[in-house]
Amino acid sequence: MIVILKQNPNAVQLDSLIAWLEEKHISVQKSVGTSHTILGLVGDTAAIDADLIAALDIVEDVKRVQEPYKHANRKFHPDPTVISVGDTQIGGGTLTLMAGPCSVESEEQIVTIAKQLKESGATILRGGAFKPRTSPYSFQGLGAEGLELLKIARAETGLPIVTEIMNIDQLPLFADVDIIQVGARNMQNFDLLKALGKQDKPVMIKRGMCATYEEWLMSAEYVMAGGNHQVILCERGIRTYETYTRNTLDLAAIPVMRRLTHLPIVIDPSHATGKAWLVPQLAPAAVAAGADGLILEVHNDPEHAVCDGPQSIRPEVFATLSEKLHSLHGFLAAHPMQ
Amino acid sequence: MIVILKQNPNAVQLDSLIAWLEEKHISVQKSVGTSHTILGLVGDTAAIDADLIAALDIVEDVKRVQEPYKHANRKFHPDPTVISVGDTQIGGGTLTLMAGPCSVESEEQIVTIAKQLKESGATILRGGAFKPRTSPYSFQGLGAEGLELLKIARAETGLPIVTEIMNIDQLPLFADVDIIQVGARNMQNFDLLKALGKQDKPVMIKRGMCATYEEWLMSAEYVMAGGNHQVILCERGIRTYETYTRNTLDLAAIPVMRRLTHLPIVIDPSHATGKAWLVPQLAPAAVAAGADGLILEVHNDPEHAVCDGPQSIRPEVFATLSEKLHSLHGFLAAHPMQ
Amino acid sequence: MIVILKQNPNAVQLDSLIAWLEEKHISVQKSVGTSHTILGLVGDTAAIDADLIAALDIVEDVKRVQEPYKHANRKFHPDPTVISVGDTQIGGGTLTLMAGPCSVESEEQIVTIAKQLKESGATILRGGAFKPRTSPYSFQGLGAEGLELLKIARAETGLPIVTEIMNIDQLPLFADVDIIQVGARNMQNFDLLKALGKQDKPVMIKRGMCATYEEWLMSAEYVMAGGNHQVILCERGIRTYETYTRNTLDLAAIPVMRRLTHLPIVIDPSHATGKAWLVPQLAPAAVAAGADGLILEVHNDPEHAVCDGPQSIRPEVFATLSEKLHSLHGFLAAHPMQ
Amino acid sequence: MIVILKQNPNAVQLDSLIAWLEEKHISVQKSVGTSHTILGLVGDTAAIDADLIAALDIVEDVKRVQEPYKHANRKFHPDPTVISVGDTQIGGGTLTLMAGPCSVESEEQIVTIAKQLKESGATILRGGAFKPRTSPYSFQGLGAEGLELLKIARAETGLPIVTEIMNIDQLPLFADVDIIQVGARNMQNFDLLKALGKQDKPVMIKRGMCATYEEWLMSAEYVMAGGNHQVILCERGIRTYETYTRNTLDLAAIPVMRRLTHLPIVIDPSHATGKAWLVPQLAPAAVAAGADGLILEVHNDPEHAVCDGPQSIRPEVFATLSEKLHSLHGFLAAHPMQ
Repeated sequence: MIVILKQNPNAVQLDSLIAWLEEKHISVQKSVGTSHTILGLVGDTAAIDADLIAALDIVEDVKRVQEPYKHANRKFHPDPTVISVGDTQIGGGTLTLMAGPCSVESEEQIVTIAKQLKESGATILRGGAFKPRTSPYSFQGLGAEGLELLKIARAETGLPIVTEIMNIDQLPLFADVDIIQVGARNMQNFDLLKALGKQDKPVMIKRGMCATYEEWLMSAEYVMAGGNHQVILCERGIRTYETYTRNTLDLAAIPVMRRLTHLPIVIDPSHATGKAWLVPQLAPAAVAAGADGLILEVHNDPEHAVCDGPQSIRPEVFATLSEKLHSLHGFLAAHPMQ
Repeated sequence: MIVILKQNPNAVQLDSLIAWLEEKHISVQKSVGTSHTILGLVGDTAAIDADLIAALDIVEDVKRVQEPYKHANRKFHPDPTVISVGDTQIGGGTLTLMAGPCSVESEEQIVTIAKQLKESGATILRGGAFKPRTSPYSFQGLGAEGLELLKIARAETGLPIVTEIMNIDQLPLFADVDIIQVGARNMQNFDLLKALGKQDKPVMIKRGMCATYEEWLMSAEYVMAGGNHQVILCERGIRTYETYTRNTLDLAAIPVMRRLTHLPIVIDPSHATGKAWLVPQLAPAAVAAGADGLILEVHNDPEHAVCDGPQSIRPEVFATLSEKLHSLHGFLAAHPMQ
Repeated sequence: MIVILKQNPNAVQLDSLIAWLEEKHISVQKSVGTSHTILGLVGDTAAIDADLIAALDIVEDVKRVQEPYKHANRKFHPDPTVISVGDTQIGGGTLTLMAGPCSVESEEQIVTIAKQLKESGATILRGGAFKPRTSPYSFQGLGAEGLELLKIARAETGLPIVTEIMNIDQLPLFADVDIIQVGARNMQNFDLLKALGKQDKPVMIKRGMCATYEEWLMSAEYVMAGGNHQVILCERGIRTYETYTRNTLDLAAIPVMRRLTHLPIVIDPSHATGKAWLVPQLAPAAVAAGADGLILEVHNDPEHAVCDGPQSIRPEVFATLSEKLHSLHGFLAAHPMQ
Repeated sequence: MIVILKQNPNAVQLDSLIAWLEEKHISVQKSVGTSHTILGLVGDTAAIDADLIAALDIVEDVKRVQEPYKHANRKFHPDPTVISVGDTQIGGGTLTLMAGPCSVESEEQIVTIAKQLKESGATILRGGAFKPRTSPYSFQGLGAEGLELLKIARAETGLPIVTEIMNIDQLPLFADVDIIQVGARNMQNFDLLKALGKQDKPVMIKRGMCATYEEWLMSAEYVMAGGNHQVILCERGIRTYETYTRNTLDLAAIPVMRRLTHLPIVIDPSHATGKAWLVPQLAPAAVAAGADGLILEVHNDPEHAVCDGPQSIRPEVFATLSEKLHSLHGFLAAHPMQ
């Protein structure tokens, strides 16, 4: 960390700052120049709050040279993290397709669709039991019953399941879930992240709707700091001024995360766009940008459902898409871009 | 709600939609025009999921005419909600100043500052015990001990206290807190909102960093739908592309909320700007725009603290500001803008 | 266009509105319901200003059913526009690579690089002569001399040239340019767009940094309304809160534009990300999402230049990338996604 | 400017960088630390392109200590700029109300409204002659004729006029205009800014819809670098994700600009919100935040116009508002906030 002082800093305040830093086992290297005095801080500066230093009267600016995350940092862990769930691996050059309905509605629904998805190449079943809904008057999911139905579908197909937790209290219900998902709205629910850091199972963290890359990685760091290193990142679109799509899918997140972290990254084009017809258009782009996987909303039998989710594709669309994504993934593996 | 159908909608699907709506006690009025067929839905359409209807093949667009919130809606509750806490009232033409340090650090700190603030015109004491921090390595607040120190400061000064809850599990600790604050990052922690709906005390909901006005009101609606109508809204800046200030303070939120809801609205210029010198510049603007109150970070004795919060003003600045804000509020009350 | 009236609209104002619409050759179909009266407007509503109607006292809301653009609208022109420049075609299933340095610096520079690019598969040469720079103290480009050097490079290689115009006054200098580029900052320089509508050569319109899809298409419509239908759209990143990349590349723009318009769409990953190392990562994603072309910054001999543009790739990187992008494009053409 | 080098920078590249800087009359002070080498650049660094240095292989980061603007910088010009137009002064503690219709429609309209506004306390007449419209099919303003009508209204009332220029070619028509306005869409039309730098009359620059404070000031710097120091800044809302208001009015811009620059700042609540009813609510907030003036859309006789601009207030609303704003301004002058 580099601290740029204002011209002619107050000597008492400067000594006080240096003493405070040294107390925290940071060694301070001072360079006095004609226009500015600069402090170079050496040591474990991840624990130092840059904003607090920047607020001091004598400080012009503070510049982090080290990233504030350690466990998630690729610099200290160059090999990609590969997460194993059942027979499936996420990360390390594979392409994982997670698919399923927005909400679990009934045993028949989830079992039928799970079988179709398995046959089409999905290796992880997704489905919502606890649903974060903007309105208290909207359907809130089947809850614990929904989790049971997911487990039945898993038993019938062998597909591991990923589903969203909304609250620490629900943790006991998730004991037998394969991957616990943290939704975008809970990305900075720090108590939940800490609790998940004590679990011994993969956690998939969706990027908050207006989270920076660094904030997203810091949420991963919360889980990892607790001891759980099985973290998957999921980009699901960020909020911008454009309203044609529900959010703006940020595919640059893939190569950026690849450089900053060793954790796998999965893309959710369904929530990002909110439009089913865009999903098969953008999924290949995510694969071409190097995604480790995709998570897709698929709903069966929409003809007889009045309420087909606007962002859900049909199983037959998934089947075609899955085949093509795997073929594209194979082509790219054989022709690496760099 | 108005549903605009595509040209020549499939008759079976249309009948199915109408039947589904009627099942939900919505009466449907169909207008067949030369270019478009339009359905007018009459009844309690707040419970209808517009996105789901918009996703149907036969539907061109859906237009809400009614807002999706009821309890928070000014149309159904024209008088402003006034919330009483101790001797203080929030809303209904008063100007409430909530002030205190970002974090509670010690008994001496919080008691000293509480006394100064009370003398300067603050009527509610704020202070963080549980702190949401981006980094797991940053100070996370004193927790339960911090709550106890706040209560000591209340006992010494008579000032009611407002402090942030981060998790449902903490609710028992908040039994004796006067106003429970929901932070921006938890604005859509729906389980927490539901639990707060069962409490019998005021809840102050900070606007999420990228929450729309409607989403913010829907979070209030979550609390109110549970039976707790004592909700205060707090604008604390939204995330934009501008990085000079930490966030962009949206003062239009004041008159907009005044029109949409009867709930009081409080402004937090400290978190919005992240810069102490901007607080006394923007606080008067908030009062002039009609805010019911302000929540301000004030830290005492920053000279001997190495780490003065960048956004905290000093007690003497608060004292001057408080006097001027009350004087401005009095002037505006005597010269109403409209 | 559908106009939703408030309850019990003033009859005089309503008659006045209907008369005004009929004067503009719009026929009005009125549906009186129990809760709302709705007007369906039939005719050339693209010429009607929806905002003005929405502002009337008697109007609750206005809903466009038709898009406000005609010439650019795919509904009225289902076949993709293919633009021919020299031997090259843009649109209609081809993949066009436009490449070259940010600024033209010297004859040797531009001729050398043009030759390298041609050999590597670029079919259009880009290069800035007039440079829009945020600071008046930054290099503003070689101007007219830069255009001449581009023409020399074209003569030497046969590559058509694309370069940016900043001002109507420069039009005579662009008489011999192959494609005129409108920069993001000029996307709503309407007088410039009108002047370009009178030219008989392709115009490439970059999306403004905070332009919606519709605003971007309306800028194309300005050129087309003047009679020039040779318009290319170029996505170059939009401004969001994320600052790691210079802008956020919006690849959903490709399938969205494909649906809304028949015009070709080109992606600029260099300006979008501002980082050279991200360009080869995101270019394949653009191809996989269906882009008609890419425009890439390439700078030769950066070792001896102190100032290598941060977003410029080297010619040898371009050569490898070009080969792979064409190979990917071929693969995707053989395995269409839908 | 401070350049933070990567660890173990290539010595040849480092020497090359230092030589290049010294060529530009920048003296370089090198501090070698255990972890990082830092270069402090002393001299006229405003002319150095920080992005270009940041792009070098050996550079970790570049930190500007000096702002890139000089003429607009308050550090070098501590006294506020006061601009005189006729009998009116803008800046330096006054409150200037600029008012008038969105578009000039007829002599009768503009003269009538100008008389009403003058009587109500406006001191500058605004009105659009050349109108930037998103659609080529919308009314584009009366053009040169509109300018003539504005001059007639000026002759009748003595009110100086401010109106928008869209293009350099229009400059001769603006010879007799009192203040030339640069619209938000043209804020980075650098050729236009340069041309205005050669004029001897005030220029009011609206902030671009997604312009940072620094970009806005750099646009002012373009005009000032040409020799014209009579620049007024106008905040008119920035584009965010919130769509209830047309844009988000950023009132923090007032104190921020006050600190960064000596130029006067004017607020446009009409365009910022797009809703007439919000204008009287936010105008006092702008005054309380220290604005030097307001620019307001006022339209007379909206009852007989089918198309009242959604953001225009009526003359009688303006009259009441004007009185109250002046009274508030007087109160604040008598009770300075700091």
